[in-house]
Amino acid sequence: MTALSDSETAPRGGPVPDSAFLKQLVAVIRAEDSHGTWDGKPDTELLAEFIVTPEERRAIPIICDPEPEVLWRMARFHDAVGLMIERRTGCTAAQMDKFHHEGFGRVVLISGRLVVVSRHLRDVHRWGFPTWVRLAEAGAALVDEAVALIERFPEAARA
Amino acid sequence: MTALSDSETAPRGGPVPDSAFLKQLVAVIRAEDSHGTWDGKPDTELLAEFIVTPEERRAIPIICDPEPEVLWRMARFHDAVGLMIERRTGCTAAQMDKFHHEGFGRVVLISGRLVVVSRHLRDVHRWGFPTWVRLAEAGAALVDEAVALIERFPEAARA
Repeated sequence: MTALSDSETAPRGGPVPDSAFLKQLVAVIRAEDSHGTWDGKPDTELLAEFIVTPEERRAIPIICDPEPEVLWRMARFHDAVGLMIERRTGCTAAQMDKFHHEGFGRVVLISGRLVVVSRHLRDVHRWGFPTWVRLAEAGAALVDEAVALIERFPEAARA
Repeated sequence: MTALSDSETAPRGGPVPDSAFLKQLVAVIRAEDSHGTWDGKPDTELLAEFIVTPEERRAIPIICDPEPEVLWRMARFHDAVGLMIERRTGCTAAQMDKFHHEGFGRVVLISGRLVVVSRHLRDVHRWGFPTWVRLAEAGAALVDEAVALIERFPEAARA
């Protein structure tokens, strides 16, 4: 496995780790690009908005409603988590979310009758990760938790 | 237990059964009436829009987006289901839904890590029940299914 393309030249968010989750996230985003508009874009540029440095974070107001773009990125992030869960367990994971327009709410991934990922989030206006390492770790941790839960309740996950 | 108020004079939708689910649904709706505007309304008038006769059903177009009122009624219906599940099992059931604007989608009720109710619906523009009996039975059936599922997966429901 190789690192993401152009990883040497991405100083914002620190070093880009060699991560299966980041590769899955890139694949999810490129799958949305039906006209090939982003073919020339390096992976790190495609994922650049997932990085929100502490300075950037402070600059984002939480008074208005969250931007549709941040909700779109959150959905792609959880799509990638769901696909990795499926690859490791064979269980598809369907995403549902419910957000108040003020930016708090819940995201779940459901396999069969089991809620394999359940997250309550707030201030989603500012959703993002300070570093590439944190982004990669956050995705991988959710996948690991979900796989453990499916192993604990295999019958419910396949009900 | 007594029947709903004014049940004798409600010919549309047929006879009104003495149903714990219908009473729970009335209580959910009255709880939304913080200013007492509906205090003088009989129960059957309050629930009248849950009845959609076959003739009315045919007259509702499914070309436009579903009315917000029908989505509101569906949410109250599932609130009532959730409250009865909680009364019978002690497990609270949180509602989430995801609808395409064209009127199809999914509603779930979640207790702990268990999806106790999972419904895929379409043409929700026309959502409703031809008779009071069918409305009462539909709610009670969902509660029964959920309770059975919680008994089957008690650990996941309390996880």
